[in-house]
Amino acid sequence: MRLRNKPWAKPLIEANPQWVVTNPSEYRGKWQERFEKAQPLYIEVGMGKGRFIVEMAKKYPHYNFIGLEMQTVATGIALKKQLVEQLPNLQLVCANGAGLTEFFATDEVAGIYLNFSDPWPKNRQEKRRLTYKSFLAAYKEIMVADGQLEFKTDNRGLFEYSLASLNNFGMTFEKVWLDLHADEEAVVDNVMTEYEEKFSSKGQPIYKLAARF
Amino acid sequence: MRLRNKPWAKPLIEANPQWVVTNPSEYRGKWQERFEKAQPLYIEVGMGKGRFIVEMAKKYPHYNFIGLEMQTVATGIALKKQLVEQLPNLQLVCANGAGLTEFFATDEVAGIYLNFSDPWPKNRQEKRRLTYKSFLAAYKEIMVADGQLEFKTDNRGLFEYSLASLNNFGMTFEKVWLDLHADEEAVVDNVMTEYEEKFSSKGQPIYKLAARF
Ligand SMILES: C[S@@+](CC[C@H](N)C(=O)[O-])C[C@H]1O[C@@H](n2cnc3c(N)ncnc32)[C@H](O)[C@@H]1O
Ligand SMILES: C[S@@+](CC[C@H](N)C(=O)[O-])C[C@H]1O[C@@H](n2cnc3c(N)ncnc32)[C@H](O)[C@@H]1O
Repeated sequence: MRLRNKPWAKPLIEANPQWVVTNPSEYRGKWQERFEKAQPLYIEVGMGKGRFIVEMAKKYPHYNFIGLEMQTVATGIALKKQLVEQLPNLQLVCANGAGLTEFFATDEVAGIYLNFSDPWPKNRQEKRRLTYKSFLAAYKEIMVADGQLEFKTDNRGLFEYSLASLNNFGMTFEKVWLDLHADEEAVVDNVMTEYEEKFSSKGQPIYKLAARF
Repeated sequence: MRLRNKPWAKPLIEANPQWVVTNPSEYRGKWQERFEKAQPLYIEVGMGKGRFIVEMAKKYPHYNFIGLEMQTVATGIALKKQLVEQLPNLQLVCANGAGLTEFFATDEVAGIYLNFSDPWPKNRQEKRRLTYKSFLAAYKEIMVADGQLEFKTDNRGLFEYSLASLNNFGMTFEKVWLDLHADEEAVVDNVMTEYEEKFSSKGQPIYKLAARF
């Protein structure tokens, strides 16, 4: 997803350094300082417009959350939500997830969310997929040993790829859903993302995988 | 799938001991004797009416095949196909797959197929599923080290369960399909089963997993 540039986004981010970090390497090992309370830290890589991470932070006040996104405009849209909510347990980061191990210290993160990540369907684009082995190695490094990776997507090709990629990396599957919204129990706890709303309302199945290293 | 009893089935099987084995333990370690040529041996557990294993044996004359099925009537229907084809590289076995390690010696099998296995959806039925860990342990024992397990189903719950079960057992996924018939390349080589024909013609996605121990 590539959003059209909006002239307001960059100035808005610059005007709100209390909510958005653009130099994440400087907080490596010190993220808890950015929150009101020190509590387990969950991050979403590629939060897009931020609906999921904002809702999670509202729903779980006893955890801290970071929404990471590389597009300025998307980060700006997420920031607008946070300016309304002013959640003390949510921080936004505008940066490329490829740098995760520079941004977070070993074991600094309790859990990681990937939602509707860009599919990069061509073979030569494999390395950009957020479930490619180099990303998995980074998640493993920054996450506590029993931390969980949760991945949702509507994209069949990316999900097929990711099942094999996580398995081949040696990850242990907790649970797999091939039609998340058909599972009444799962739906109760499920926090929807913008993409999830869009695709599930069209009747497409949503795939989900929960796994540990 | 429980077929209605047919009075012809048992007598037909008994009249054709050259094609159907009902005492498989007696051939443990000696299955190659039952075929015209000694060549890699592939088995299907729960062949039903036998379309898949008969087609495989026709398509791959340089491999030997065994179709195993515990229902007499289904085995009888498969036998009728083999009586027409008279394939020298196909044997049928009427027995319960729970006894696999009594029927086959270590490393006697080159590959295993599970097609549209009974889903046994209730939690208390988990142990009967052909992808439950006790079955996986048996497949591992009788199969050569680089042997492949191929599993197809239309049943979402069983496939979700099996992805986690095979992963948790430590198996390595070769490839996952969440809509096999949408993959033009895979369709070329795909041999359909009776159930596959029925469900795919209704537009249901066919799931497939290829994995090794
Ligand atoms: C398809 S959108 C999904 C957004 C949101 N998670 C949702 O479900 O609605 C994927 C987002 O991931 C972001 N993204 C992709 N690769 C990224 C990376 N390496 N680092 C940070 N963000 C990334 C994209 O810019 C885009 O906003
Ligand atoms: C749903 S049918 C599918 C038949 C066929 N593979 C197909 O795809 O058309 C499942 C078959 O597996 C057989 N089966 C189930 N459990 C078995 C076991 N433990 N040993 C042998 N056969 C079994 C059943 O009797 C039934 O014929």
